[in-house]
Amino acid sequence: MNDFVAGKKFDFGELILSEQEIIDFAKAFDPLDFHTDREVAKTTIFKGLVSSGPHVFNNIYQREWIPRFGKTVICGMGVSNWKFIKPVYANQKIKAELTILAIKPDDKLRGNAITWLFEFRNEKGEMVQFLQMDVMHKLP
Amino acid sequence: MNDFVAGKKFDFGELILSEQEIIDFAKAFDPLDFHTDREVAKTTIFKGLVSSGPHVFNNIYQREWIPRFGKTVICGMGVSNWKFIKPVYANQKIKAELTILAIKPDDKLRGNAITWLFEFRNEKGEMVQFLQMDVMHKLP
Repeated sequence: MNDFVAGKKFDFGELILSEQEIIDFAKAFDPLDFHTDREVAKTTIFKGLVSSGPHVFNNIYQREWIPRFGKTVICGMGVSNWKFIKPVYANQKIKAELTILAIKPDDKLRGNAITWLFEFRNEKGEMVQFLQMDVMHKLP
Repeated sequence: MNDFVAGKKFDFGELILSEQEIIDFAKAFDPLDFHTDREVAKTTIFKGLVSSGPHVFNNIYQREWIPRFGKTVICGMGVSNWKFIKPVYANQKIKAELTILAIKPDDKLRGNAITWLFEFRNEKGEMVQFLQMDVMHKLP
């Protein structure tokens, strides 16, 4: 599935991270106290345990993006404008949306360089996180 | 330790990722074939197993950055200009350097917003990866 069209949007549904998932991810990847320790987290500006920023993205990347597009990847090129705007707490419902921002053919690698926009919003519709990911994909 | 000065550089030494470490990290966070499957990787533009881009950063972030600066973090704000320039293969020696690009006081959070530049180079001195990370830190 690599019929890529600039402007195309994908609804990636919802994600909910449990307290244990937040702690497990952070211990493996981002072991800061306010991601791994309930008691310490209460004393921070967050007043409770919050997910590692990359956890929100990685959950959807693995659950939705890789199954759809993983086989078309030639190589990853970069990530930009990754903004952690609001904290994401355990058991909070987050909606994920993906948009193809741009497609640029690459003759040398015989591929399409695609800029993907991931957006994550809370139940009020407020943006909690977004990022752009640049990936070289095989031609259809 | 949060006597932060713009322009300050930190030598974070070397990292070497084994084939098994590359596979284990990718299975947990970035399960694309050329990170997890030796045989498939041989058929790609890489001609062999390569590390997930985030693995290189995350190794040094956990090994060097968190022990030094983790206790001073108020919150993460974002990541930008993360470029995967050259593949990093198993057992390849990579040098890591950190620079404080900018420090901006934040009155509301009573902290310092710091832009960190991570640079990773191979043994020839060629850049293989870099990124900027924005973090709000407690005042000294």
